[in-house]
Amino acid sequence: MANTPSRWSITRRGWLAAAALSTLLSACAPMAPATGADPLPSWNEGANKQRIVEFVRAVTTEGGKDYVAPGDRIAVFDNDGTLWLEYPVYTQVRFVFDRIRVMAPMHPEWKEKEPYKSVIAGDMKGAMAGGTKGILEMLGVAQSGSTTFEFEAIVDQWMKASNDPRFKRPYSELTYQPMQEVLRFLRANGFKTYIVSGGTVDFMRAFTEPVYGIPNEQVIGSRQKFAFEVKDGQPMVMMQPQLEYSDDKEGKPIAIAQIIGKRPIAAFGNSDGDFQMLQWTTAGSGKRLGMIVHHDDAAREYAYDRKSSIGHLAEGLDQYQAMGWGLISMKNDWKVIFSPAK
Amino acid sequence: MANTPSRWSITRRGWLAAAALSTLLSACAPMAPATGADPLPSWNEGANKQRIVEFVRAVTTEGGKDYVAPGDRIAVFDNDGTLWLEYPVYTQVRFVFDRIRVMAPMHPEWKEKEPYKSVIAGDMKGAMAGGTKGILEMLGVAQSGSTTFEFEAIVDQWMKASNDPRFKRPYSELTYQPMQEVLRFLRANGFKTYIVSGGTVDFMRAFTEPVYGIPNEQVIGSRQKFAFEVKDGQPMVMMQPQLEYSDDKEGKPIAIAQIIGKRPIAAFGNSDGDFQMLQWTTAGSGKRLGMIVHHDDAAREYAYDRKSSIGHLAEGLDQYQAMGWGLISMKNDWKVIFSPAK
Repeated sequence: MANTPSRWSITRRGWLAAAALSTLLSACAPMAPATGADPLPSWNEGANKQRIVEFVRAVTTEGGKDYVAPGDRIAVFDNDGTLWLEYPVYTQVRFVFDRIRVMAPMHPEWKEKEPYKSVIAGDMKGAMAGGTKGILEMLGVAQSGSTTFEFEAIVDQWMKASNDPRFKRPYSELTYQPMQEVLRFLRANGFKTYIVSGGTVDFMRAFTEPVYGIPNEQVIGSRQKFAFEVKDGQPMVMMQPQLEYSDDKEGKPIAIAQIIGKRPIAAFGNSDGDFQMLQWTTAGSGKRLGMIVHHDDAAREYAYDRKSSIGHLAEGLDQYQAMGWGLISMKNDWKVIFSPAK
Repeated sequence: MANTPSRWSITRRGWLAAAALSTLLSACAPMAPATGADPLPSWNEGANKQRIVEFVRAVTTEGGKDYVAPGDRIAVFDNDGTLWLEYPVYTQVRFVFDRIRVMAPMHPEWKEKEPYKSVIAGDMKGAMAGGTKGILEMLGVAQSGSTTFEFEAIVDQWMKASNDPRFKRPYSELTYQPMQEVLRFLRANGFKTYIVSGGTVDFMRAFTEPVYGIPNEQVIGSRQKFAFEVKDGQPMVMMQPQLEYSDDKEGKPIAIAQIIGKRPIAAFGNSDGDFQMLQWTTAGSGKRLGMIVHHDDAAREYAYDRKSSIGHLAEGLDQYQAMGWGLISMKNDWKVIFSPAK
């Protein structure tokens, strides 16, 4: 992989310009019907592909009973496990652990303090022993004391150097190609695509525009506390260690109502943390689309659901049919899993 | 005025469609230079008009040293006193008082309880006697127990029937025509225009799209607490009486960093509550625009600044020159004040 030109080797500025151009182009042809080339070439033919294509056709057909004006074509996507790899460790947790190791020389006290000690030693089990509380404390330490813009640069640099132990690629190249096609297909049809994820918003903004074509203002996530400070006459918004908002479960529809102020018409998730977002989205009047990505492909990715703490999916499996949602089988619906390196 | 077709007499759906179309048209010509017709016809020639036009020209000139890619062309506007009338009583406070009167028959206890008693009696001085605390308590009562969508309909209905005691027009027609031109001029040049206001976001979203062409997702404001509830199988996001976030002073740059995730390149305000937003915006590298609307026209609107509690402006008057901001004189810079009825 080392000789393949990576998407991340191109400057961020270049990517931002390309993303902006793509936004413009899709805005200029929002009514473009789904004709001609297959908009979802990485999807096998079947009920799930058909459901997505049919939904887009219905809501974009002017004069049709399901027509939705472009301004109301809001689609929301969970990130971890829905758009990119989350198993067996959330990518943001990998970042936090790496960052703790980078910071360790300035914190000699961590040598004797758990879970820092285990993180520094590379003992994953020990690092996880403190549960969510321990991880959030480390996240606060690893992600504070800088502006969001400085922090984005830190994540960007980390991402370029990252290398998944199993797939031997940076995490920015472990996004799901079939979902990338869904994002582009929706945008080509006048949708605004949003990420609504449990990850913290500043972590995601380091890569969502180059990787997904989703600009910062369409990324909703868990939020750390921010503080406004003026230092040497320079006003700055500084990241604080406290987590202020958890964008998970009922936190997802609430954040959507607060920040977007519209009820989405399409929602994609993969775990029970996405249940309320899909529930709220699909209970609206008119045609709606709710889809769950089911991780059932141990050969090409991973297989996990009811018994997993990462991407725990039980309520969704029990209720998706009654709710009228689609259950996407990664094994059967997707021709390929990951996006090609760019 | 009664026989003039009001903008508010047109259906909301029609306005949303028009606004969406206008968004598309501006997105398709984002590089359109400011040539030909005067983009700011309601502005007198002078330093402030020139400053705005020159700023837009500079950041949109490809290859120029001040060029800014469309995705980073973010402009933020305070609402009360910057885009529409705020004096001598914030319009949202007028709404809250009217709503308390509507709710009064279901609350016999209010007859003996201040400040409700004064509000019901139409005694403005008594209604205000409890200060911000009293007003926020009434706001919580007046703006809770419904979904945001139900609430928007309530505000919409109130707005149509509203009638300012001095200007004899609904508040939706008391927006500033020169600022409407700035909004359109910026959007025609590829900017995303955001409202960042102390008003609560759900109140503003009832009118920001039809009145300013600004969609819900570009409205940032103070936030009430929301709760996710499922009633009879119907999931709903319900407005709660508690104010969760105050979008004023340092709360403005913080909310922008959290929700937009980009530092704006242009900011417009009118009071010291906007100081930090202008400060943060204009301290960024590259060309920036900071403008303060100064209410100095008692004949056509009102004159107030240092001594006023509404729209208090002292820090901004003292520092605008050192900060490199423009001070807009409503009296001298604006040919007309209010937008014509539509």
